[in-house]
Amino acid sequence: MTERRAAGGASSGGGAAGGAAGPGTPASARLAPIEYADASPEVRAIYDDIMATRHSDWVNNYWKVLAHHPPSLKRMWANSKQVMGPGALDPLTKELIYLAVSVTNGCDYCIASHGAAARRKGLTQEQFAELVAIIGLANETNRHAAALQLEIDPQFR
Amino acid sequence: MTERRAAGGASSGGGAAGGAAGPGTPASARLAPIEYADASPEVRAIYDDIMATRHSDWVNNYWKVLAHHPPSLKRMWANSKQVMGPGALDPLTKELIYLAVSVTNGCDYCIASHGAAARRKGLTQEQFAELVAIIGLANETNRHAAALQLEIDPQFR
Amino acid sequence: MTERRAAGGASSGGGAAGGAAGPGTPASARLAPIEYADASPEVRAIYDDIMATRHSDWVNNYWKVLAHHPPSLKRMWANSKQVMGPGALDPLTKELIYLAVSVTNGCDYCIASHGAAARRKGLTQEQFAELVAIIGLANETNRHAAALQLEIDPQFR
Amino acid sequence: MTERRAAGGASSGGGAAGGAAGPGTPASARLAPIEYADASPEVRAIYDDIMATRHSDWVNNYWKVLAHHPPSLKRMWANSKQVMGPGALDPLTKELIYLAVSVTNGCDYCIASHGAAARRKGLTQEQFAELVAIIGLANETNRHAAALQLEIDPQFR
Amino acid sequence: MTERRAAGGASSGGGAAGGAAGPGTPASARLAPIEYADASPEVRAIYDDIMATRHSDWVNNYWKVLAHHPPSLKRMWANSKQVMGPGALDPLTKELIYLAVSVTNGCDYCIASHGAAARRKGLTQEQFAELVAIIGLANETNRHAAALQLEIDPQFR
Amino acid sequence: MTERRAAGGASSGGGAAGGAAGPGTPASARLAPIEYADASPEVRAIYDDIMATRHSDWVNNYWKVLAHHPPSLKRMWANSKQVMGPGALDPLTKELIYLAVSVTNGCDYCIASHGAAARRKGLTQEQFAELVAIIGLANETNRHAAALQLEIDPQFR
Repeated sequence: MTERRAAGGASSGGGAAGGAAGPGTPASARLAPIEYADASPEVRAIYDDIMATRHSDWVNNYWKVLAHHPPSLKRMWANSKQVMGPGALDPLTKELIYLAVSVTNGCDYCIASHGAAARRKGLTQEQFAELVAIIGLANETNRHAAALQLEIDPQFR
Repeated sequence: MTERRAAGGASSGGGAAGGAAGPGTPASARLAPIEYADASPEVRAIYDDIMATRHSDWVNNYWKVLAHHPPSLKRMWANSKQVMGPGALDPLTKELIYLAVSVTNGCDYCIASHGAAARRKGLTQEQFAELVAIIGLANETNRHAAALQLEIDPQFR
Repeated sequence: MTERRAAGGASSGGGAAGGAAGPGTPASARLAPIEYADASPEVRAIYDDIMATRHSDWVNNYWKVLAHHPPSLKRMWANSKQVMGPGALDPLTKELIYLAVSVTNGCDYCIASHGAAARRKGLTQEQFAELVAIIGLANETNRHAAALQLEIDPQFR
Repeated sequence: MTERRAAGGASSGGGAAGGAAGPGTPASARLAPIEYADASPEVRAIYDDIMATRHSDWVNNYWKVLAHHPPSLKRMWANSKQVMGPGALDPLTKELIYLAVSVTNGCDYCIASHGAAARRKGLTQEQFAELVAIIGLANETNRHAAALQLEIDPQFR
Repeated sequence: MTERRAAGGASSGGGAAGGAAGPGTPASARLAPIEYADASPEVRAIYDDIMATRHSDWVNNYWKVLAHHPPSLKRMWANSKQVMGPGALDPLTKELIYLAVSVTNGCDYCIASHGAAARRKGLTQEQFAELVAIIGLANETNRHAAALQLEIDPQFR
Repeated sequence: MTERRAAGGASSGGGAAGGAAGPGTPASARLAPIEYADASPEVRAIYDDIMATRHSDWVNNYWKVLAHHPPSLKRMWANSKQVMGPGALDPLTKELIYLAVSVTNGCDYCIASHGAAARRKGLTQEQFAELVAIIGLANETNRHAAALQLEIDPQFR
């Protein structure tokens, strides 16, 4: 996909406002990512926290497009940090769960971005093959259960 | 769900054949589970393997309804054993992936059965809460990615 | 599911109006089916055509609930008659396609109603078992294709 | 996507027949849009109505590909006019509902075409950001409800 | 669904802690809602805010089950307040978008709870009928677009 | 999609091993298809069986990418042969069911590959148009059933 972004380029220009248009601004066909250089201080602070948290020197398109609406950017980053941060499940397992959802929904962007995250966290080729197999099997048996109108066994309640 | 199974009871009767009707038999409204006592030797052998593999003394409805078509029963059990058996991912992680798919698809039977499997394999309440949170977040961001028509970052390829 | 229908019963009462409330009527929690005896002449005419077309003496809940909005009832019955009527695909094949979609979406009502339709059109138990197997396999490989980010072979274009 | 359309180009040629092949014609790999100049009078009449209804001077690919099967073209245009036409919900709200479905299903074509329709009907950037946030949140909580096997509160019935 | 909640009742007992079990606690089959009387002060504060925000005197099961994991309860309530609160889209439109997603995903709980919310915000029977029609049409055309492998018109970019 | 495959090319190199990396090998961004010339004898034997079964002289990307994990390749080919092979449903009907699922899930690769398979098995343009119409209608009515919270008619049980 190499098409030009229609009004997106225009809407992200204009200096310090950093693409965060006012309430009455018409929506654009497709929003261009807001680069760090063009971002408002508020948006930059979140980009900085994303990079610091991930020990990374760049920010991916999800955040840079979400940045057109700073309250969404701030909210989703807070959610992501809390949900994907340290907890009772290890970081790689968290990414596998994320990938299982993204593959089931057929989200190409998410498969690419969280596939990369899983590899950074140590995913091996063998683990990936097993992940793919389980996702496929679960999607298969989910439909068997629906087609056969299965009653839940009392032991499972 | 307490409704009576219409023709299912009838179709699973009829002695040792255990409900495995011939090719021209009309399909039933809903297939009743084939109990061990009513199952053919071929089906019993698979039930035995299911129980031995799981260190369990009962077989759940998925297999008992699938048993109406022995080639499907045999095939799915072989798949399940291979995919969910020992490998590069630990047994609990495999169940979490399975659950992530089943929840995303809204499969009540599968959530109940694999939720039970995950608990048998040690799932704690804290891990469950994190699983639910990740599944929800991934389903949310998957749609953000679609709505925003995100371009995949070159770094993810 | 045996719960009482909250305001539905009230909204379908009131004689010849047949539950077709005016534009400003507040929406009900769950709409009760409009029975033939309570239906307006306009709705009855469609019920009659449904029964005549199907060589049946009753109308199922889908149509009886849709009847609360006669333009939707009329429109959907016209669509259904055209799409599911005689054509280049035989009637049983059409039902199998319908079931494949309904199972993939996990629509219990649709699986029950179109399962019944398929059986009336001659579905055998063996054919049903194969249908279930194909639906499962396709749902499995669909996710393999997504997970593996497959490129479409030039031969398929 | 710039690949050549295999047999599509051929099937849409041939003058007045306008690509509407006979019942026994083998299916093509991908159907090329039927342009106005190549369309049959029957198809042109619908194109004319689409443009008149929309105050537009062109027809988009959905209709031009559907035109290979005139009964489907006619049927879907009639549905679309009735469902998306003037009613109790205003035109922009109707497009937002359409977009919510299309994003949830990950339909890129539909997001692009109904995104454009929504912008023509006045969608602002702020409204778009809220739409995206609600779609995401609903997809998230839908899965929480499934994972937690929530019982419906009596107050909601 | 009237089945008993297996271990849920037990896990929510135990006094003021209100069911918020420690990290190592085994997961339960199905979590029982935590009632106000059994809730910790932290959870009660959120229940209070939910009721105050909604001008209501009760809390629905979604929040009462989520309360088993207070960080999730707190996070989701903050998200919900921000996303569904006052903004550029009016409250009823927000609920219609929520419903469009929930219906597309087949989430019974969410259809019931947000259907109730929409009615409280003034949804009429006519608007509901139009909502249902649009959701159906969008789901239909989404699949037409996929089946026909439509190319996005340059005008939509 | 014309992007370069990042590490894929590297991981499939290395001679006779044919891309089947050991358990500890890091996962690649996107796996390149393993060509016949680069495949291990084990993988070649399956490629040979695929081509012989299909009376074809090439193997499509699904199998060539799955080949990175020979147990998955072997397992899925065995499943596919059993499920899609001769049975109570004719070969074209089986492909239509497959397509109905793939379109509902929006799987572009699967629509392309099984569309080609259906055409090889005699799908006509008229049958394709009817298939598309039924898939669309079923996806529409599935959502009507959910939105209207339909109760299953006793006659369907």
